[in-house]
Amino acid sequence: MFSRTTRQLSAVSSRLSRPSVMSSQFLRQYSFQVFRDAPPLRQMRRQLLLDQKTVGLVPTMGALHEGHISLIRQAAAENSDVFVSVYVNPTQFGVNEDLSSYPRTWDSDMAKLEEVNAELARQGGNVGRITAILAPTSKVMYPTLPPSSEIDGDGSFVTITPISKRLEGASRPVFFRGVATVCMKLFNIVRADRAYFGQKDVQQSVVIKRMVKDFHVDTEIRIGNTVRGQDGLAMSSRNVYLGARRHKVGLVLYTALKAAESAYAAGNVKRSDILDAANRITARVLSDQQALTPSERALFEVDYISLADPESLDELDVVDPSKGAVLSGAVKMAPLEESSAAEDCGLGDGKVAVRLIDNLIIKPRA
Amino acid sequence: MFSRTTRQLSAVSSRLSRPSVMSSQFLRQYSFQVFRDAPPLRQMRRQLLLDQKTVGLVPTMGALHEGHISLIRQAAAENSDVFVSVYVNPTQFGVNEDLSSYPRTWDSDMAKLEEVNAELARQGGNVGRITAILAPTSKVMYPTLPPSSEIDGDGSFVTITPISKRLEGASRPVFFRGVATVCMKLFNIVRADRAYFGQKDVQQSVVIKRMVKDFHVDTEIRIGNTVRGQDGLAMSSRNVYLGARRHKVGLVLYTALKAAESAYAAGNVKRSDILDAANRITARVLSDQQALTPSERALFEVDYISLADPESLDELDVVDPSKGAVLSGAVKMAPLEESSAAEDCGLGDGKVAVRLIDNLIIKPRA
Repeated sequence: MFSRTTRQLSAVSSRLSRPSVMSSQFLRQYSFQVFRDAPPLRQMRRQLLLDQKTVGLVPTMGALHEGHISLIRQAAAENSDVFVSVYVNPTQFGVNEDLSSYPRTWDSDMAKLEEVNAELARQGGNVGRITAILAPTSKVMYPTLPPSSEIDGDGSFVTITPISKRLEGASRPVFFRGVATVCMKLFNIVRADRAYFGQKDVQQSVVIKRMVKDFHVDTEIRIGNTVRGQDGLAMSSRNVYLGARRHKVGLVLYTALKAAESAYAAGNVKRSDILDAANRITARVLSDQQALTPSERALFEVDYISLADPESLDELDVVDPSKGAVLSGAVKMAPLEESSAAEDCGLGDGKVAVRLIDNLIIKPRA
Repeated sequence: MFSRTTRQLSAVSSRLSRPSVMSSQFLRQYSFQVFRDAPPLRQMRRQLLLDQKTVGLVPTMGALHEGHISLIRQAAAENSDVFVSVYVNPTQFGVNEDLSSYPRTWDSDMAKLEEVNAELARQGGNVGRITAILAPTSKVMYPTLPPSSEIDGDGSFVTITPISKRLEGASRPVFFRGVATVCMKLFNIVRADRAYFGQKDVQQSVVIKRMVKDFHVDTEIRIGNTVRGQDGLAMSSRNVYLGARRHKVGLVLYTALKAAESAYAAGNVKRSDILDAANRITARVLSDQQALTPSERALFEVDYISLADPESLDELDVVDPSKGAVLSGAVKMAPLEESSAAEDCGLGDGKVAVRLIDNLIIKPRA
């Protein structure tokens, strides 16, 4: 698809200033450059442009899993250079949300990226490589005012309404403002030819596509399929908190969405006929759990099960088969009530509530 | 500074779709290309980048006057290619503001730009030329939802707070949201090396600089001096509505700001000492006018006279000479109460209220 030049192992950018135990780790030699600030990355990017190379950006908050790796592989198949950003963005976490408990795993993330690069190298000249990591400080990403998570907090923000108020936005009012804001910054720094997001965060992908269209961002948004475990649970950085019991019960969301998808496939187009199939599943699994003892069960709350227009995310009464729809949902897995010492309760010993989201796309009929 | 190649008169972009009487005018041959949409302009811009040319963007809402021309001359001195955008942006006009009465003067604007290009050509290879005009439709600038001027209206917006709430923003709550939003779009389309704004709109320049910093826009913001008429009145597209009588009385704002500047130059650093000098002027001129008959006078209201920090626009109690300050103000010239047929009352026969703004910069001492 494009030619590769020999690439030397390159040292980390000289603009290191992370005031933490991580500093020494940044000084390691990687097969990609690690940037903490925009200007040196921009210089590299400008040279790639002049050399007619292409850049695919994979934005992440670290805690990399197979879903991210899948996006990186896709980016490497479509671009000569893959840039991965690693930044846990404070403005998308609500004041009472889990910013502090979000997993931070720099060493294992870098090890995974090195593995991917070794894999890509074995594939030879037909695929790109990870050549840059952008791991900015918050002062780089929010240079003037400290990043605010308050709804009426001050700062420089991108807002995309009304779609940011729907679904996930209904329970997380600052979430998509934070996501759009940080992505606009990343897009401006990297000026990627393409940027990669997972289908799993469907509303995020709709918001970002809207932002790119409305603000004429010259980056193509590419959506990678949701990556699932063998049992079907969608990959998420937060899954490490589930443990075995809640993992198994958490499958209820995917199972419910599949039931709704089957109802549509069987010829139903009315909202109630499609969503009733999902709601029957969640109700049955919940009542099954409630019948168990506190040491056996995993309780949950359904936040929403939605049938929505794929572009506006407006709820649909009837699916127009020529336009398709998005089936999506969120459930909140409650902390375990009781557990034994021998049980696999996940990181945090089962005490962290975990919100799971998932979705299935009803594609428009040709 | 950079070399010039011979440039052919080039036809207007083929993507014309303006559904109005202007269509035929767009088909004229100019010494620059006229673009109605982003993709063909991007193609031109990409080639300029590969050719190592530089682009300076001068965003305008048309109704070009000597202030704009001065920015274009500055852009041509600093870049090989000057792009001028002409777009009256609806989202920066409040619901009750003067969007409909804003002057639209395409033919004379293009004539002025041709004159500037002829002047630049006479200067030879040391200066750039106007090579592109971006005159987008509202559907191009607001491709999804119609442009909203409502404070809680839906859409894709950039907000820069708290500075957007100060000064002009206090009486025009959607103004800087509209300005920041349209500038982000223009910056993304043009990807200029430099963009030029007038010092006259000082708060606009502060908001745009903040946006560029916070969102890592890779465009340098350059501020051109306020251009004034011989009597000192700052150039503005709205001045055509003043007429002779209100023009003369409207000078009160500049005179008041000069008095405050003199008070600072004389050694005063306290807010009251500096602003009292300005307020004495406005009070005296107003009482002088009130003493005249309705056919002789021009009444006005002072919206604000401000002494503010140059970066945050927070009001200052004391000027720190090492940081400097912004002296700014706004007055609203009321419609004329009575006039004779022979009088020069300006466009709109003196019936349009005209808001004037002006400012002087107290530079930091070295």
